[in-house]
Amino acid sequence: MPAPDTRPGTVTTGPIRGSRKVYLSPPGHPGLRVPLREIALDDPQTPRLYLYDTSGPYAEDGVAIDLAAGLPALRESWLAQRGFEVVEGRAVRPEDNGFASDERLVAPCPAARTLRRGHVGQPVTQLEFARAGIVTEEMVYAAHRENLGRIAASDEEERRLAEGESFGAALPALVTPEFVRDEIARGRAILPANINHPELEPMVIGRNFLVKVNANIGNSALSSGVAEEVEKLVWSIRWGADTVMDLSTGRNIHNLRSWILRNAPVPIGTVPLYQALEKVGGDPARLDWEVFKDTLIEQAEQGVDYFTIHAGVRLAHVPLTSKRVTGIVSRGGSIMARWCLTYHRENFLYERFDEICEILRRYDVAFSLGDGLRPGSIADANDAAQFAELDTLGELTKVAWDKGCQVMVEGPGHVPMHRIRDNMTRQLEVCSDAPFYTLGPLTTDAAPGHDHLTSAIGAAMIGWFGTAMLCYVTPKEHLGLPDRDDVKTGVISYKIAAHAADLAKGHPAAQAHDDALSRARFAFRWEDQFNLSLDPDTARAYHDATLPKDAHKSAHFCSMCGPKFCSMKLSHELRGDAEAGMQAKAEEFVAGGGALYVDAPADLPA
Amino acid sequence: MPAPDTRPGTVTTGPIRGSRKVYLSPPGHPGLRVPLREIALDDPQTPRLYLYDTSGPYAEDGVAIDLAAGLPALRESWLAQRGFEVVEGRAVRPEDNGFASDERLVAPCPAARTLRRGHVGQPVTQLEFARAGIVTEEMVYAAHRENLGRIAASDEEERRLAEGESFGAALPALVTPEFVRDEIARGRAILPANINHPELEPMVIGRNFLVKVNANIGNSALSSGVAEEVEKLVWSIRWGADTVMDLSTGRNIHNLRSWILRNAPVPIGTVPLYQALEKVGGDPARLDWEVFKDTLIEQAEQGVDYFTIHAGVRLAHVPLTSKRVTGIVSRGGSIMARWCLTYHRENFLYERFDEICEILRRYDVAFSLGDGLRPGSIADANDAAQFAELDTLGELTKVAWDKGCQVMVEGPGHVPMHRIRDNMTRQLEVCSDAPFYTLGPLTTDAAPGHDHLTSAIGAAMIGWFGTAMLCYVTPKEHLGLPDRDDVKTGVISYKIAAHAADLAKGHPAAQAHDDALSRARFAFRWEDQFNLSLDPDTARAYHDATLPKDAHKSAHFCSMCGPKFCSMKLSHELRGDAEAGMQAKAEEFVAGGGALYVDAPADLPA
Repeated sequence: MPAPDTRPGTVTTGPIRGSRKVYLSPPGHPGLRVPLREIALDDPQTPRLYLYDTSGPYAEDGVAIDLAAGLPALRESWLAQRGFEVVEGRAVRPEDNGFASDERLVAPCPAARTLRRGHVGQPVTQLEFARAGIVTEEMVYAAHRENLGRIAASDEEERRLAEGESFGAALPALVTPEFVRDEIARGRAILPANINHPELEPMVIGRNFLVKVNANIGNSALSSGVAEEVEKLVWSIRWGADTVMDLSTGRNIHNLRSWILRNAPVPIGTVPLYQALEKVGGDPARLDWEVFKDTLIEQAEQGVDYFTIHAGVRLAHVPLTSKRVTGIVSRGGSIMARWCLTYHRENFLYERFDEICEILRRYDVAFSLGDGLRPGSIADANDAAQFAELDTLGELTKVAWDKGCQVMVEGPGHVPMHRIRDNMTRQLEVCSDAPFYTLGPLTTDAAPGHDHLTSAIGAAMIGWFGTAMLCYVTPKEHLGLPDRDDVKTGVISYKIAAHAADLAKGHPAAQAHDDALSRARFAFRWEDQFNLSLDPDTARAYHDATLPKDAHKSAHFCSMCGPKFCSMKLSHELRGDAEAGMQAKAEEFVAGGGALYVDAPADLPA
Repeated sequence: MPAPDTRPGTVTTGPIRGSRKVYLSPPGHPGLRVPLREIALDDPQTPRLYLYDTSGPYAEDGVAIDLAAGLPALRESWLAQRGFEVVEGRAVRPEDNGFASDERLVAPCPAARTLRRGHVGQPVTQLEFARAGIVTEEMVYAAHRENLGRIAASDEEERRLAEGESFGAALPALVTPEFVRDEIARGRAILPANINHPELEPMVIGRNFLVKVNANIGNSALSSGVAEEVEKLVWSIRWGADTVMDLSTGRNIHNLRSWILRNAPVPIGTVPLYQALEKVGGDPARLDWEVFKDTLIEQAEQGVDYFTIHAGVRLAHVPLTSKRVTGIVSRGGSIMARWCLTYHRENFLYERFDEICEILRRYDVAFSLGDGLRPGSIADANDAAQFAELDTLGELTKVAWDKGCQVMVEGPGHVPMHRIRDNMTRQLEVCSDAPFYTLGPLTTDAAPGHDHLTSAIGAAMIGWFGTAMLCYVTPKEHLGLPDRDDVKTGVISYKIAAHAADLAKGHPAAQAHDDALSRARFAFRWEDQFNLSLDPDTARAYHDATLPKDAHKSAHFCSMCGPKFCSMKLSHELRGDAEAGMQAKAEEFVAGGGALYVDAPADLPA
């Protein structure tokens, strides 16, 4: 077995330029250290701004990362006191790693962790605790993250909240642990946190919280080592991915997943069907409940936080796709449809759904109910197949809740703008407010090469309408494997969509970011402007492209308009003049009987 | 005077890869040759697709371009018979070229054109012709372009139109010349076409037509020659810019503009205020009506098709900006605000608006009423200053219409999603349905470096709501001068936004593009998929990045999921199986009393 490449320095570490990772404790919980990204500004009104931070310990200044040891197990003490069963765990089998031969087998991550499982009947999931009225440490932690460093809401923030349009959501001015608990209890939010993922920095997904972003990663056929695979995770969360789905297939997936999980501060999602299919040689006809169940347990024990389960692709739905322009475009959906048609039997994931719930509950793996029949083109949007499956997902949501499991529901895909709202409205109704988790949607099929953008339009809109988490799309969608730049572009594009949605919903703290940036812009504080960008490096590089000197970073213009035509420069001079002279002039004119200035119409925001 | 660099080959020519420029004649008008981009496909259902083509003769196969001769003057014969006055024209003065010294002076374009001006009282503008019930050649031409090669609307297209959501717009199934005339007559559309711009390929801007895109260009301080400046135009229209605004300042602007106009197949817009300011040495205080009027005549004679006029920045509005986070961010707006405050007098553009109309009418220069007080940040969106100015623009729209001038109205800017619709609704109401022309809007301030995307979200939405033309934003917005790649990214991003808007409005022909692409995708016709992309080169390059071989261009998978996990491949196999066996199986089950397949819910689209 070759030694995996776990040398330090092979994943990206250190702060994002212009930022500093800080840990703040929620009031009354000095032992909890909640991460935030602090940007120090040369602005008396906002000397520092706190942003939500998904990057984990990697972004600490001077951090030493030992991939073999894994991240600090910050939940360990919380989990240890919950009385879970400590188990041996399932033995790893050759098929778990795609029958990788010895010389090709990557060793598993050696980090030692206590393997736990809930007893039958014992409360395990955050949903079960919430229903029992218990506020877990995870809830306290996640609540504090949502407040972006605030411990009270200002009048200004309350006003923004009142002025937003949230389409019936119920965002609070300040998120309390009890609010998180209540939202989880009623199924409107999930806190994905497998009890075997103690490294997790807890976060919450629901329409009454900040809109979240997921990034997909997967192994490469020619991976050169462990650090390279972990780096995909580290790179995604550095730019803001709130969760990461590991869609790896092929050899070494079990062992590579152990490296990812032990080094992941964010929830990790998977599609267990992919690995199950690998175990049966890639032939959907050979899939059965036993191999699937075995895979669920395998991954649940490793610590995967949520599973996409394609239980909604019922045999009866498959013919509804026959006239579609693009058939079935979900991998999991097409695999299960194939299985159903081969045997002309009902989807075994649907038939075994109770048993799946029982397994997931014991580790608190959340469901991400897969939309195997999502539309793959504008022509197929909102069609009978899609909505028939959604009805089934609504039915399964209730089953899972009854079994104590947390649930979110996956959504499309490709949808023209005028059909997006209907997706959200139906999902909320059919799935009883369970969080929606959508892929885009792409608002046109006509621009391969730019699908991060075609889909960011739809993502921003559906996020505004109520989607809780947006699955990113990279520029390479439909065309090939994303590289490092594509992943960053995808994540940043989706952070923009999520933030635009937060702003429109009236999230009380969202606009502080925009205001700080705009004040920096108006004051020509270029460094602050770069540092406040969701992508500081690109903002700086674009400015450097024409004005690279240090002196340019305080110049009262940029190369876009030049000094003579800089509206902001003129506007400043104007303001100085205005302040000096306008009042006097006005008084003079008013004294002379002239009405010079118009009042603001009464119906406008101040 | 150095000879300008007008060597052939210095602007981009030849077809977009996978496309061919064709010219089709509208029924009954064999003499009119309307350009379209034809994509030949390996698809029995759509053997060829026609896209709207803005690229001019440059994209013809084997075209020879002579910048000094200018483009063919296709409108010359139409204009010649309208009885306009033929004039000498205003003599060029040193200040027109920024007092460029002899050795720095670029020679004007030598292409000879008849200089025309409407007689007082004679109908000149497309609006005046339309009101008189006259269908001009320009209207016939523009109407045919809108139909994308169709001469009738199919049932399918009628259905899409009925199913779209156009927010009260009145898109027809097929655009007739009479429809164009009627829309212009009631002010809901403009056809910007200066009578001194005979090279123009006429197009129409209005909410009942395809959503249009504008790109901004401007001279560089260190321009190496004429071809380089014309290339900015050629490059923008190659990727789909419907109009181009020349925002040049400084030396040689008059003469460079002559090269641009003589070689522009699209409407050219300018902000005459910029040149007027140059003429008075860059000091707003030295601006007056005489220098502005002189500039209007100078540019109207050259053939500029629309002018941004900041007549809505009234003295009384300026104090409304004093509490803003970002003050005044329009260059024209800040210049006029400065002038107003300096003299404490009403904006002379407002006071002289009648005279401005009289000048513009005689050349058919359309108004683009500038929004000098547009918000420059989320915080300033929809504020009193913005809407006070909008009210004035509504008042000026009626004045311009009374004077026979065509009008569109400029809009923001920076607007969070939940405030976008209000912008459109108010503009339609206040400006009596005159076309809206917006810059984005950006839906967040927080992502400099990605403002093509933050704004494409807002642009798609406001385009859907009714905006007629979207002014592009490049990735360098707020940071520096866009380069060639930035301009392309900006134009493609906005073509996406415009197309997404057309789809959502239910434009009858828009979805044909998406459907053709999606069919190509599902059939693994990779070449067709690339060729159908709004950006064929990028789509191809992204596919080549992992699968460069020719054989990969017909492979039934791509590197994104690989062959084993390609949902479309599985879906195809499924469909084969399904067609062969599903019907038989269904009959078998039905015969046995089982109800296997569910019917589509009645309220869904087919």
